[in-house]
Amino acid sequence: MGLILRNVFNFSAGPAGLPKAAMKQAQAEFVNWKNLGLSVMEISHRSRFFLQVAEEAEQDLRDLLNIPSDYEILFCQGGARAQFSAVPLNLLGNSKQATYIDAGYWAKSAAKEAKKYCDIDIFKAKIKKGGKNSVILAKEWKIDSNSAYVHFCPNETIDGIEINDLPQTDKPIVADMSSTILSREIDVSKYGVIYAGAQKNIGPAGICVTIVRNDLLELSNSLLPSILNYKVLAEKKSMFNTPPTFAWYLSGLVFKWLKKQGGVKAIEQINREKASILYNYIDESKFYENNVHVENRSIMNVPFQLAKPELNIKFLMQASESGLMELKGHRSVGGMRASIYNSMPIEGVKALVGFMCEFEKKYLT
Amino acid sequence: MGLILRNVFNFSAGPAGLPKAAMKQAQAEFVNWKNLGLSVMEISHRSRFFLQVAEEAEQDLRDLLNIPSDYEILFCQGGARAQFSAVPLNLLGNSKQATYIDAGYWAKSAAKEAKKYCDIDIFKAKIKKGGKNSVILAKEWKIDSNSAYVHFCPNETIDGIEINDLPQTDKPIVADMSSTILSREIDVSKYGVIYAGAQKNIGPAGICVTIVRNDLLELSNSLLPSILNYKVLAEKKSMFNTPPTFAWYLSGLVFKWLKKQGGVKAIEQINREKASILYNYIDESKFYENNVHVENRSIMNVPFQLAKPELNIKFLMQASESGLMELKGHRSVGGMRASIYNSMPIEGVKALVGFMCEFEKKYLT
Repeated sequence: MGLILRNVFNFSAGPAGLPKAAMKQAQAEFVNWKNLGLSVMEISHRSRFFLQVAEEAEQDLRDLLNIPSDYEILFCQGGARAQFSAVPLNLLGNSKQATYIDAGYWAKSAAKEAKKYCDIDIFKAKIKKGGKNSVILAKEWKIDSNSAYVHFCPNETIDGIEINDLPQTDKPIVADMSSTILSREIDVSKYGVIYAGAQKNIGPAGICVTIVRNDLLELSNSLLPSILNYKVLAEKKSMFNTPPTFAWYLSGLVFKWLKKQGGVKAIEQINREKASILYNYIDESKFYENNVHVENRSIMNVPFQLAKPELNIKFLMQASESGLMELKGHRSVGGMRASIYNSMPIEGVKALVGFMCEFEKKYLT
Repeated sequence: MGLILRNVFNFSAGPAGLPKAAMKQAQAEFVNWKNLGLSVMEISHRSRFFLQVAEEAEQDLRDLLNIPSDYEILFCQGGARAQFSAVPLNLLGNSKQATYIDAGYWAKSAAKEAKKYCDIDIFKAKIKKGGKNSVILAKEWKIDSNSAYVHFCPNETIDGIEINDLPQTDKPIVADMSSTILSREIDVSKYGVIYAGAQKNIGPAGICVTIVRNDLLELSNSLLPSILNYKVLAEKKSMFNTPPTFAWYLSGLVFKWLKKQGGVKAIEQINREKASILYNYIDESKFYENNVHVENRSIMNVPFQLAKPELNIKFLMQASESGLMELKGHRSVGGMRASIYNSMPIEGVKALVGFMCEFEKKYLT
């Protein structure tokens, strides 16, 4: 086995870096878990050993997000993309319409999938403000009264846009929180459904957390595929089919790590500090630019462009040589993107800024 | 970390034991894969590093099963249960009916889910033969000419029943091979669709391999949830959404391990030898019984009953103390079940027979 002679910081947008402590524990007990002589992934999901893992993970997540007791927590498969279908299939009831707030790539993708099942009332919330990308305040979103629910994506991973307020509506609010869950405090009781692919702040790819207000389970239609049926999943405690046990276990380790850091309130402070270090540097620099208005800048995903795009490949190569990994922007946007999820330590952001500063000096003139 | 002072053999029906060599490699490179300083689960599924993993896994599986080039290999989520919906949703086309061969729990479960989407022509294939559970020969299965396809489950994990022949039909044959894939040679070209949850002979729970004949992709309906749409998954090379990268990678290691063992032909011989050691001992004993006719005995799942069911708990406890784990039968059947998938070495079966023999001596009288 090779030694790591350098510190590596992983800015991947997802599957993203996971907390080192959780990964080390998972590695140490990988083939001999609880001294059983087996891996956690080699036992029945219905064994008492695994049931304890499952229950603790659920309780820890409930504690971390203060999830009220009238909400079910489902550990699903198929990622957030499966939820793009599951949401309308579960929530429409007798209604034929839903409102989708469009503020970026993922919100649009969710609306496109939902369109198979109902009319979509789209509210275009993305605007320019002072020449920068911005989002209309949620209190001004127009939500058609015929809609069964309103869907939005509070953090657009690709665009680096974050929405910080909630609409005033009596419709269930549904949020794709894949890249924002656990990064900042939220009031779960304001939502009907929250879902989040794990591969950013929860655990490895292959599991998706869905939090559903109990009363909404009654809307589910028995004709929809069971694997997407919230009521079935709730009744079977997310074990309607064999769940992705290792991903569930590893997510549980991440929840325990987060509790140790002081929980969501504490990590939010660190996340805000990390984000401001990076945005402050970008704003002061003439070499880098972020095109999101300050009110809607994501604290998780920081896209930025180089003044000289012809240097993009050089930037990525030299960054990677310095142990700053996976900084390439999404192919639809180009440029760079630093994803600074919970597991990214403040040192990682400082190292990135240090590198950006040197790179700027070298190539500005 | 505790030392393992004994050899443990894992008879779990699934999630099942994985090959030790694959597990050890995964552990060794768990936090520093390819000397990147990152885990394979911490990088983008679209990075060249992961794409190589994905492509190699697909090619290795193609080699192992001799999958013809006009078949797509899809790495899906949601387990075989998701395929219970996906199969009718993808294959019905304009047809309104499918034939399901019922020979056990899983075949019945597949039919129940499909019934949401079409009429089900059920052929009850389970019979008694010499007082034992058996299955009508496939050439005698009646398949209604209005059916879009015929579905069966060649190995019933719970009942310990295996079907060794194929129906003569011009309809696409669809097989749930979750607990038989890679255990014995098959002729893929005879099937329309083969699917298999990974957690027996492929890898960890959370991934499901679906092998689809190309021409059937054209039947898929754009209204079905994209995550279940074979055509979408094929076009996106199983990356329509973020795939379960770690499960995919680990499955790839298992494929490489199997190639090293000599492939499916070689492992089939070992599997048959393992099964016959166990069945022979059970048949000779007056203390244990297997209730499946010799023609349909599974080489993967061997359920057996004790002559004195009141000793079940004692048997399980003492077995576990001897390092023979997860022998409890499915709750719907009771008794014991030894699952002896590819990763179970012949020594494990011999150790089990040795223990059964001692237990019999102790408690027979």
